[in-house]
Amino acid sequence: MILAIIEKKKQGEELTREEIAFFVERYTGGEIPDYQISALLMAIYFRGFSERELFDLTDVMLHSGEILDFRDLGTVADKHSTGGVGDKVTLVAAPIMAAGGLKVAKMSGAGLGHTGGTIDKLAAVPGLTTDLGRERFKNQVKTVGMAICGQSDAMVPADKKLYALRDVTGTVDSLPLIAASILAKKLALSPQLIVFDVKFGGGAFMKSRAEGEALARAMNDIAAKSGVQAASFLSRMETPLGRAVGNGLEVAEAYRTLAGEIGGDVRESALSIAGCSFWLAGYVPDLAAGYERAARLLDGGAGLDLFFSFLEAQGGRFRRPDFVAALPKAKEVWEVKAKASGYIAALDSLKIARAAQGLGAGRSRIGDAVDPAAGVYLNRIIGEEVRAGEVLATLYGREGGRLWSDLVGDAYTLSPQAPKPLPHIAGLIPGQNR
Amino acid sequence: MILAIIEKKKQGEELTREEIAFFVERYTGGEIPDYQISALLMAIYFRGFSERELFDLTDVMLHSGEILDFRDLGTVADKHSTGGVGDKVTLVAAPIMAAGGLKVAKMSGAGLGHTGGTIDKLAAVPGLTTDLGRERFKNQVKTVGMAICGQSDAMVPADKKLYALRDVTGTVDSLPLIAASILAKKLALSPQLIVFDVKFGGGAFMKSRAEGEALARAMNDIAAKSGVQAASFLSRMETPLGRAVGNGLEVAEAYRTLAGEIGGDVRESALSIAGCSFWLAGYVPDLAAGYERAARLLDGGAGLDLFFSFLEAQGGRFRRPDFVAALPKAKEVWEVKAKASGYIAALDSLKIARAAQGLGAGRSRIGDAVDPAAGVYLNRIIGEEVRAGEVLATLYGREGGRLWSDLVGDAYTLSPQAPKPLPHIAGLIPGQNR
Repeated sequence: MILAIIEKKKQGEELTREEIAFFVERYTGGEIPDYQISALLMAIYFRGFSERELFDLTDVMLHSGEILDFRDLGTVADKHSTGGVGDKVTLVAAPIMAAGGLKVAKMSGAGLGHTGGTIDKLAAVPGLTTDLGRERFKNQVKTVGMAICGQSDAMVPADKKLYALRDVTGTVDSLPLIAASILAKKLALSPQLIVFDVKFGGGAFMKSRAEGEALARAMNDIAAKSGVQAASFLSRMETPLGRAVGNGLEVAEAYRTLAGEIGGDVRESALSIAGCSFWLAGYVPDLAAGYERAARLLDGGAGLDLFFSFLEAQGGRFRRPDFVAALPKAKEVWEVKAKASGYIAALDSLKIARAAQGLGAGRSRIGDAVDPAAGVYLNRIIGEEVRAGEVLATLYGREGGRLWSDLVGDAYTLSPQAPKPLPHIAGLIPGQNR
Repeated sequence: MILAIIEKKKQGEELTREEIAFFVERYTGGEIPDYQISALLMAIYFRGFSERELFDLTDVMLHSGEILDFRDLGTVADKHSTGGVGDKVTLVAAPIMAAGGLKVAKMSGAGLGHTGGTIDKLAAVPGLTTDLGRERFKNQVKTVGMAICGQSDAMVPADKKLYALRDVTGTVDSLPLIAASILAKKLALSPQLIVFDVKFGGGAFMKSRAEGEALARAMNDIAAKSGVQAASFLSRMETPLGRAVGNGLEVAEAYRTLAGEIGGDVRESALSIAGCSFWLAGYVPDLAAGYERAARLLDGGAGLDLFFSFLEAQGGRFRRPDFVAALPKAKEVWEVKAKASGYIAALDSLKIARAAQGLGAGRSRIGDAVDPAAGVYLNRIIGEEVRAGEVLATLYGREGGRLWSDLVGDAYTLSPQAPKPLPHIAGLIPGQNR
């Protein structure tokens, strides 16, 4: 049976729901060996999946484990980014969404590769846990309006096993496999609405805008078929998002954004996403009104209050006025200085991400320890001016800073003319049911 | 490293010889798990291999084990068929080649799937063994001029392991993997010349002539790069070869062909292949002269004498004049009769092969027992006339004949007009060094 399924997909034929259920369930149950599934995954990489196959794969994976349903608490909402360098938008947008009345129930994975996961960022807050039991998780969503937990073994076990296999067989970057993996995990929390943020470009998984759009449409489509309101932002990842890359540094930047101390792409992106969630919830008539409402919640301090309540509810230990002081400090600090004067015309996010990872902010293998204080702070970002000798960027870590300084320096391209940087958000694709 | 190799092939890039050696050697050595190699094999299925990659894969597999070299005995020759229904040509052509002065050293695999292997056919001869030690094998090639042994564990171990994995991961029908697997096993006996017989059509592995030609050219090319004279026949496998399908039945048909009792496609094919081998060896100036020489060896009885000497040397127990009487008899015999009168316009080799397999002539899994007496004898073949009620085919086996009679009946298509059957041999592609 499994051989016939491999052969069918290899020939480019559509698999039935029964065939998809067969391989997912039998593989999760340990009845089909890894070597047959890895061959099937590679065939799926080359042949793709129809919309119907994609929905069935998602639905079968979703039902491989426990499904939570908190809809008795209100309008359950989620926000998902496909992963970008310096992407701390969840930590800004989700508190605003909750402050606006939505119930944000979020399950996140630990980061692997060059982009950190939200779970890793939160781990930089002293005392904070993301290992919430079901009751605690639900209770926090009810009382605080927002909770973020790590992936539970009981939920979507099929994805856990398939993802681990994809990771070691070169089959991670398959659109249907990515879309089904994301959606099964999102749908396991029974949300009424999801805002996706699909990153594309050098520092993202999807290298081109066309690939990003295809993923966005596929995710919107599965959500619509599952009765979930959804919309997908497309955003550029040639250059890092904001100034901080590294877990503790990013939490600090999220705090400063919510405190109204800084603006820029992180604020714009968070307000757009939170605003979109209000629109999807029917709270406002259009996206512009949603954005305005999100801006009022941030500027009025409701977002920051929610951020603190959320962190405290999950065990975070800090004094509210001195939040940043509670975050871990790096042992060593190195500065990268500009060798010439000019404008920052390009800032390569992949190079910055590799340096941050090398400094200890990311992991190369599952189980690697992460240094919460490690990372890169970009004193100058795209479009800004710098004079020879001024600091371009600051590196934080335990050791090896000299090693990574050159790479960070290489990430900067200077130009004599002031460039016109493109906005982070490149577009929005609303779901079919909006 | 292996992940980078999978990724590279997935993107359609050419692998270096070092990369090919890395995955073949580490996999054979048990250092790379099955699930990574199966993903790589599927990527190779989709992306293919360049001529250079194909040669390197063959060469690396060849050198994964022991290589025999009998060239001190004379001109070592081999003949290889990609597998067809009723293909007993080796048992006719090889004795003629040996009778003509060549040293035929042949290593064969057991059949899996719908076409039987030469090892299975020979096992129908009472007392015969194909488990020859290296010394006995060489000595028989020297004294008799011909020996056929089973695949040794010491030779081409990489192919054994890769083939077993391909078999369970839907990656058998990849041209480069097929070509490298065949050539590595052939080259492990250091032949000076090889005649290939590539079957195409419904009952063959290669479904179209174009696919058959591509495989023929690939095999010729590897042989040429390895300094081996080669040529590839292309032959049609829409309809079975000869009248017997099943191990003992095919040995009997081979005997009758060598005894001059019957002609037809088996004789034509064997004479063409043996003739071609004489041409490749430089014994004759052209193919026509080779064919003539082969025909004289068959008609003069030298081929049959060699056939008997070869079988006796490998332990076969029979009295030469009553050879067929020594072969095993089936417990049950069933006849399929024509329901109408007409000419046989088509005879589906795949249906005949499935019936023969169902009767016990083939195995579905490694290790299945094979009934040497089981099979189908085609009393009427393509182009012949039949009257309603006359016998079309005879089924031999232990049980289940009723079950398979319908399938055999279905294999026949009758027509009121006499058709013009196409010859079995469709063409010859000489190697680059002829």
